[in-house]
Amino acid sequence: MRTIDWISGHIRLIDQTALPATVTVLDIHAVEELVDAIKRLAVRGAPALGVAGAMGVALAVRNLPAERARETIATLRAARPTAVNLALGVDVALAAFERGGADAALDAALRVRDDDIAACRAMARRGTDLLDRLLPGRSRLRVLTICNTGALASVEHGTALGVIEKLHSDDRLDRAVVCETRPLLQGARLTAWELRQMGAPYDLIVDSAAPITIIRGGIDAVLVGADRIAANGDTANKIGTLGLALAAARASVPFLVVAPETTVDLRTPSGEAIEIEDRGGAEVCTFHGVQTAPDGTTARNPAFDVTPADLITAIVTDQRTIDLSDNETPAHRPLPAQHAG
Amino acid sequence: MRTIDWISGHIRLIDQTALPATVTVLDIHAVEELVDAIKRLAVRGAPALGVAGAMGVALAVRNLPAERARETIATLRAARPTAVNLALGVDVALAAFERGGADAALDAALRVRDDDIAACRAMARRGTDLLDRLLPGRSRLRVLTICNTGALASVEHGTALGVIEKLHSDDRLDRAVVCETRPLLQGARLTAWELRQMGAPYDLIVDSAAPITIIRGGIDAVLVGADRIAANGDTANKIGTLGLALAAARASVPFLVVAPETTVDLRTPSGEAIEIEDRGGAEVCTFHGVQTAPDGTTARNPAFDVTPADLITAIVTDQRTIDLSDNETPAHRPLPAQHAG
Repeated sequence: MRTIDWISGHIRLIDQTALPATVTVLDIHAVEELVDAIKRLAVRGAPALGVAGAMGVALAVRNLPAERARETIATLRAARPTAVNLALGVDVALAAFERGGADAALDAALRVRDDDIAACRAMARRGTDLLDRLLPGRSRLRVLTICNTGALASVEHGTALGVIEKLHSDDRLDRAVVCETRPLLQGARLTAWELRQMGAPYDLIVDSAAPITIIRGGIDAVLVGADRIAANGDTANKIGTLGLALAAARASVPFLVVAPETTVDLRTPSGEAIEIEDRGGAEVCTFHGVQTAPDGTTARNPAFDVTPADLITAIVTDQRTIDLSDNETPAHRPLPAQHAG
Repeated sequence: MRTIDWISGHIRLIDQTALPATVTVLDIHAVEELVDAIKRLAVRGAPALGVAGAMGVALAVRNLPAERARETIATLRAARPTAVNLALGVDVALAAFERGGADAALDAALRVRDDDIAACRAMARRGTDLLDRLLPGRSRLRVLTICNTGALASVEHGTALGVIEKLHSDDRLDRAVVCETRPLLQGARLTAWELRQMGAPYDLIVDSAAPITIIRGGIDAVLVGADRIAANGDTANKIGTLGLALAAARASVPFLVVAPETTVDLRTPSGEAIEIEDRGGAEVCTFHGVQTAPDGTTARNPAFDVTPADLITAIVTDQRTIDLSDNETPAHRPLPAQHAG
């Protein structure tokens, strides 16, 4: 099943807040319901939010009078201010509507959906091809990952977890090791659930067990997603990624970033230019709502960290493979000819 | 207050399972109660368990007929089979009893307690002296630590946290950053509580935030304890320590191991000889009793990791400072003359 889709005139999505305990499907007929689902993280992940934004516009322009639609779409676009893809999805569908009406908006939304599916397939293919090249003769692989970069963050396949899914479906996955991903446990809750759905063998670990697991646990490759990739290859991703990269470099284990080309931001020269936001202490001082630290404890809660390019073996996008270990960078490895400007 | 002490003919200890929510003091008049406290981790930490073992013998030989005392002491000695210090404490007090009776057993137990306090004071002094040497002119320090290596693991002061306590009492602690220490949260529950008790400024972080905090967060030094130190300086300690060491090496931040001389095991040549035990998956798939992963999830749960000597700046014990960065090792840096064999 797809995380988000368009079914008989409305949006259907999996409510991720109920996972892994329950699989709850939400049938969304009004944009207000979609805004609520986005705000409480029932749908999350950059690509899925792009699809949600575009389908939300399609829903609004079908069902509401023009003025009301415009207001509702503005609310939708602002539902998660830092989620660039949500706004992009809204803009694409809105432009299509202005050119060709409600049907054109829906066509555009379905194209956003289909493009995401195709991009994930391309990343999975490139990723497994690269693993073949880096680990020749290794027939079954043991890989380690963090956070959720799977279908739940996209539509039907994922980025880093999409590569793992393809390894599994090609019968080449020995085992996946999943970091639980404190503070919000996307690894334990979502990635473990996806691997179980696909019948893939996996083990969960606490995040701090990753370095010794990479160095002594027979890991063949580390696969992670990305929030933003700078021009020199420095990569911002879920907090904890940097620790995996340090351990992988120490153990000479390939460390691959798998993310759509849209994540590459050539206007950011290097990781130093990326400011690390703090999500506030509450998530750290509690766990699943239970207080873990004494009253009055303050916490730091960096949302992501930045992995320097020299610790990354390669970046795999839907359009190219950038061999950082071979001194390529996103800025110095042009896109394939058909995409180059 | 001391974590464990002998008061008017009985043992008094802080029940660590109730922290940080409540400070519960247990007055223990019978060895059975002590065995129960040890088994449910109301008292923990190698030095504190050594004191508990010795005081348990003192209690038994004072209050019980010979045969019954012998049986009870055997149960006590086996209460936590992997805790070497517990058995050592029992043996020391029992040998004293056989030489000099019940009073001699109590004297021996009080000596184990006093020796631990003196050793922690010596480590704190050596540790702060070393920081002066490594960071000349840095008047106030920002340090990072993991797990609980404080008074709660010892008697009145700690090992790594003992150094931080002395920095604070010398008015030289800018701030301590504490890793929460999954899976059992000794950092969030115990270290944060101790720092709060001493009025020291601190921030809690999730374990995976440590590398970026060390590399970009202005940390002056990382201080950790040890479970076992091999002859070449490789150090087994709480899971997560290795990740801190990798980040500290990358950032050229001093990484200090602070542990009593008894932790050095010259019969273990290197870390490769240390087998890493797995504590079972239940602690990983739950958090504070709440299930976090889907039913049927398996987990790896290494109890500790091994940090290679080349990532350690120095090892500080109660008797010496071993400059690993200057190519010294525990085996090649003899004890001071008065202690050498």
